[in-house]
Amino acid sequence: MNIVIVGLGVIGGSYAMALKNAGYKKIFGVDSNMETLKKAKELELIKEGYIYGSYIIKKADLIILSIYPKLVKTFIEENRNNFKKGAVITDATGIKELFIKDVLDILPKDVDFIFGHPMAGREKKGIDYASSEVFNGANYLITVIEKNKEENIALVEKIAYNIGFKRVKRITSKYHDEIISFTSQLPHAIAVALINSDKESRDTGSFIGDSYRDLTRIANINEDLWSELFLGNKLNLIKVIDEFSSELEKIKKCLIEDDSEMLKSLFIKSTKRRERL
Amino acid sequence: MNIVIVGLGVIGGSYAMALKNAGYKKIFGVDSNMETLKKAKELELIKEGYIYGSYIIKKADLIILSIYPKLVKTFIEENRNNFKKGAVITDATGIKELFIKDVLDILPKDVDFIFGHPMAGREKKGIDYASSEVFNGANYLITVIEKNKEENIALVEKIAYNIGFKRVKRITSKYHDEIISFTSQLPHAIAVALINSDKESRDTGSFIGDSYRDLTRIANINEDLWSELFLGNKLNLIKVIDEFSSELEKIKKCLIEDDSEMLKSLFIKSTKRRERL
Repeated sequence: MNIVIVGLGVIGGSYAMALKNAGYKKIFGVDSNMETLKKAKELELIKEGYIYGSYIIKKADLIILSIYPKLVKTFIEENRNNFKKGAVITDATGIKELFIKDVLDILPKDVDFIFGHPMAGREKKGIDYASSEVFNGANYLITVIEKNKEENIALVEKIAYNIGFKRVKRITSKYHDEIISFTSQLPHAIAVALINSDKESRDTGSFIGDSYRDLTRIANINEDLWSELFLGNKLNLIKVIDEFSSELEKIKKCLIEDDSEMLKSLFIKSTKRRERL
Repeated sequence: MNIVIVGLGVIGGSYAMALKNAGYKKIFGVDSNMETLKKAKELELIKEGYIYGSYIIKKADLIILSIYPKLVKTFIEENRNNFKKGAVITDATGIKELFIKDVLDILPKDVDFIFGHPMAGREKKGIDYASSEVFNGANYLITVIEKNKEENIALVEKIAYNIGFKRVKRITSKYHDEIISFTSQLPHAIAVALINSDKESRDTGSFIGDSYRDLTRIANINEDLWSELFLGNKLNLIKVIDEFSSELEKIKKCLIEDDSEMLKSLFIKSTKRRERL
C-alpha cells in the first residue's frame, strides 16, 4: 500500500514517524517546502518527497492530508484527475462541517474520503517538532458520511490503532464540531485570554505554580491554523464561550455575596466531574 | 533545631518528607487526626506526633503551620503563652492580607512570624498524597513585615532552598495577594467554570486531547481550603476575573465580526507571552 502524506508539518511528520515505527514501508511525502522534504528523507521517514504531488498522488492508495483546513478543498480540486480509482483519502483537520459538503461536491465517485481527526498535537509547528509518541493513548474521531465504504473506514481505524491511538470513535460531523468547540477550541480561547489579561511588564514568572503553567501552555498557538479553526466553527464556539462565562459569573456572584456554601458546591461539582474524566 | 509542623496534610506531610531528605533530624508533628500522626511516624517523617500541641510547641525553634487560613489566627491565640522566646513561625498559606494584621495584634513580642507561601501543591488532600518532590523547582514567596528579623527571614529562605525551591522572592502582602489572585486563584476559578459548563451526561472523555485535560486538572479542588482562599482574597479575584472576561470577550468579538486579523494578533500576543514565561 502506497501512503502519501500531504503536508509534513508537526502532524504530518508525526504521522510519517508513527507509520514507519508501525511497520509501514511505502510512505511518500508532499510538501511545498524543500527543506522539510530533505529533512524527512534524511530521517528516513519517507521513501521520496515531492514539491508537486501529481506524480505520486496518481500512485497513492491512501492519502493523509495534514494541511490547513482551507487547503483541503483546494487540494481535492487540484488533484481530482490524479486520484487512483479506489483511493482512500483521510485528513487531520480539527473542524469538519465547514468543508465536508464542499469536498463531496467535487470528489470523484470512485474515491472515498474518510474524515478523521487525530486529537493530538503540539504547540510548535514544523517537522522539527514531529514525534511518533504524540498519538500514544490519544483519541481519534471519524466523522462518517453516508458514502463511506465500511472497509475504508476500517482501514483508517486500523491504522489509527496501529500508530498508537487508544480510542477511535465514529460520530457525525455536526456532533464533532459541537463537542470539539468545547473540548478543544474553548480551552485554547481561555488560555489565550488568561495570559493576555496579565499586566504588561510584570515579573509573573516568579509568582506561578503548576496551575498557571498548565493553563497557559496552549496559549503558545499557531495563529494561522487556529484562526481558521475558530472562525470555521464560530457558532459552536461562541455558544460554549457564553456557557463557560456564565459558570464563571456564578463563581463571581459567590464572591460578591460571600456565599461560601454555594462556592463549595461548585467546587464539589467540578471535583466529581474531574474525577469521572 | 526543633522543627514542629502543625497540620500533616498533603503540604505538611510534604514538608516533613522534604526536610527529612534535606537532613533535618528533629522534626515533630501536630495534627488533630490520630491516624495521620501514626502514618507520619511509621514513615519516620516525624520523631513524635501530638494531638495537642502545647507540650512540643514549648520546645519548638521553628514552627511550620500548614493549616487552613482561618486556623492560623486561632493557633496563635491558643498558643501565645506556649511559644519559646525567639521562636520563628512560618506558614504555607496562599493569601496573606486577611490575617497578617490579626496575627501581629496577638503575637508575643519575642516571637517572629515569617509569612511564607510555597507555590506548590497537589489536587488531593491528606498525608497519603504528600511527596518530597512537590517543592522541586517551585517558587517560594515571603511577605516580609517590618518587625521581621533578617536572620529569621534568612533561616526560612535557606530552608526553602534546602528542600528544593528554585526561587525565593520577598514581596509585600498587598502585592502578594494581588498577583496570586491572578496566577493561582483565577486559574482555579477558570478550571472549575470550564468543567462545570460541560453538558451533563455527555461522554466528554472520548473527545478530549491534552488541552482539556491540562485545563481541568485543578478543577479537582479541596472545597474547604479554596473557598477560604477565594473569599479571603475576593476583591483582587473579582478584578482579575473581570480582566480575564474582557479578554475572552475580545476573542468572541473577533468571531462575531469574522475578524481573522485581530484574532491572529491576539494569538501572536499570547504566544510571545507564553514563550517569555
